[in-house]
Amino acid sequence: MSKLYAVGIGPGRKEFMTEEALEALNRSELIIGYTVYADQVRGIFPEKEYITTPMKQEIDRCRMALEAASAGKTTAMVCSGDAGVYGMAGLLIQLESSYPGAEVEVVAGVTAGISGAAVLGAPLGHDFCVISLSDLLTPWEVIEKRLRAAARGDFALCLYNPRSKKRRDHLARAVGILLKEGKSPDTVCGWVRQIGRTGQEQKVMTLAQLKDEPVDMFTTVFVGSGSTKRYGSRMVTPRGYEKKQ
Amino acid sequence: MSKLYAVGIGPGRKEFMTEEALEALNRSELIIGYTVYADQVRGIFPEKEYITTPMKQEIDRCRMALEAASAGKTTAMVCSGDAGVYGMAGLLIQLESSYPGAEVEVVAGVTAGISGAAVLGAPLGHDFCVISLSDLLTPWEVIEKRLRAAARGDFALCLYNPRSKKRRDHLARAVGILLKEGKSPDTVCGWVRQIGRTGQEQKVMTLAQLKDEPVDMFTTVFVGSGSTKRYGSRMVTPRGYEKKQ
Repeated sequence: MSKLYAVGIGPGRKEFMTEEALEALNRSELIIGYTVYADQVRGIFPEKEYITTPMKQEIDRCRMALEAASAGKTTAMVCSGDAGVYGMAGLLIQLESSYPGAEVEVVAGVTAGISGAAVLGAPLGHDFCVISLSDLLTPWEVIEKRLRAAARGDFALCLYNPRSKKRRDHLARAVGILLKEGKSPDTVCGWVRQIGRTGQEQKVMTLAQLKDEPVDMFTTVFVGSGSTKRYGSRMVTPRGYEKKQ
Repeated sequence: MSKLYAVGIGPGRKEFMTEEALEALNRSELIIGYTVYADQVRGIFPEKEYITTPMKQEIDRCRMALEAASAGKTTAMVCSGDAGVYGMAGLLIQLESSYPGAEVEVVAGVTAGISGAAVLGAPLGHDFCVISLSDLLTPWEVIEKRLRAAARGDFALCLYNPRSKKRRDHLARAVGILLKEGKSPDTVCGWVRQIGRTGQEQKVMTLAQLKDEPVDMFTTVFVGSGSTKRYGSRMVTPRGYEKKQ
């Protein structure tokens, strides 16, 4: 059996990867990934063999990785953030049974919700939901249903993929749904752009203001619960320890 | 200004920490934490000064850390998993303004939801909620409200603190609520115990079976969405790529 590691590389710089992730890459003969992510580890492991594919070729990419592992080559599939959160780990496991000899092992990484939250303070300090606003693979009705449920449950929210070239108004539509479901326009919100990368930016604002923020596909958005508070340029969703004082 | 790093150490072993976390601990003169977590990094940094406090002394612990940083000592507060998810990062930021000279910086880590998901496959591969079943700091009614909302939104769920000595039936009650809100008894579920530690165990089962599983306070529980599937001893919540085939 050859290992196929599904490796989360966090925001992409070596310092944000776990030792386990670095070791899995070190043990791999072949590293496969979307071009941008593969290039991020190429500097750390220049001697490895690489196969890169453009965006939107996820199934081809996974099949190539499974085929290589099936043929006896220890392989790693690199994913941004964590391989299990909107990453390739699931698809690799779904396809695994067609490739005897390949054994998928998921290596956890720091997903953008966690790394972005650290930049803003602790917006996910209590119960939270993670929702992708991308409707490429998910019907928009499902996204709407989840936004409504998240608002009713008074969760803190982390929104992935708030905008793309084709979807310019998804964040504004999401904010509209959250307000309609009873979230206060004063709810503390924030976003982080290019988390852990050159040009990292962050901002904290209200839910009413979030609607018109110039987010892009490299931005992760955070919406507070009813108890989230602003502390200068940061936001905290408290767990309740302070009530014990 | 002296830094006070809020450091997520993941499941506790060095290999699951990021380089950024190791560097923050290396730069710190003093390391403070709940005894169990501080002991996990003591082996890596034996030369550091340590202050440890028992469980449930979170505010005292945070004040000690802020005081030390305020007095000019670079300090790290270590937390299991990620410092921002049910950790000390929020409380440190909330108290920070009373300690001039102390500057809190959150260093992201791999929270149990992410590391446990990697063990099980990819249960959090699509939109998900994280809910703690501990009612020590959160009224049970709020927990119930969030469980109902999560069920209605058809999220995959990750449940922290499914049981403690005083709360033996919280998981069974949570399962009851999810079933009542329409989740199928056949929903694929799983748990991981002692994630990344000696004695790690995992199991995949249905929601109907989850009710009677012998979870403890070192167990993280995963409940699938309507589309979560079982693959042998693993579970995957697909993002939808496979529909493109």
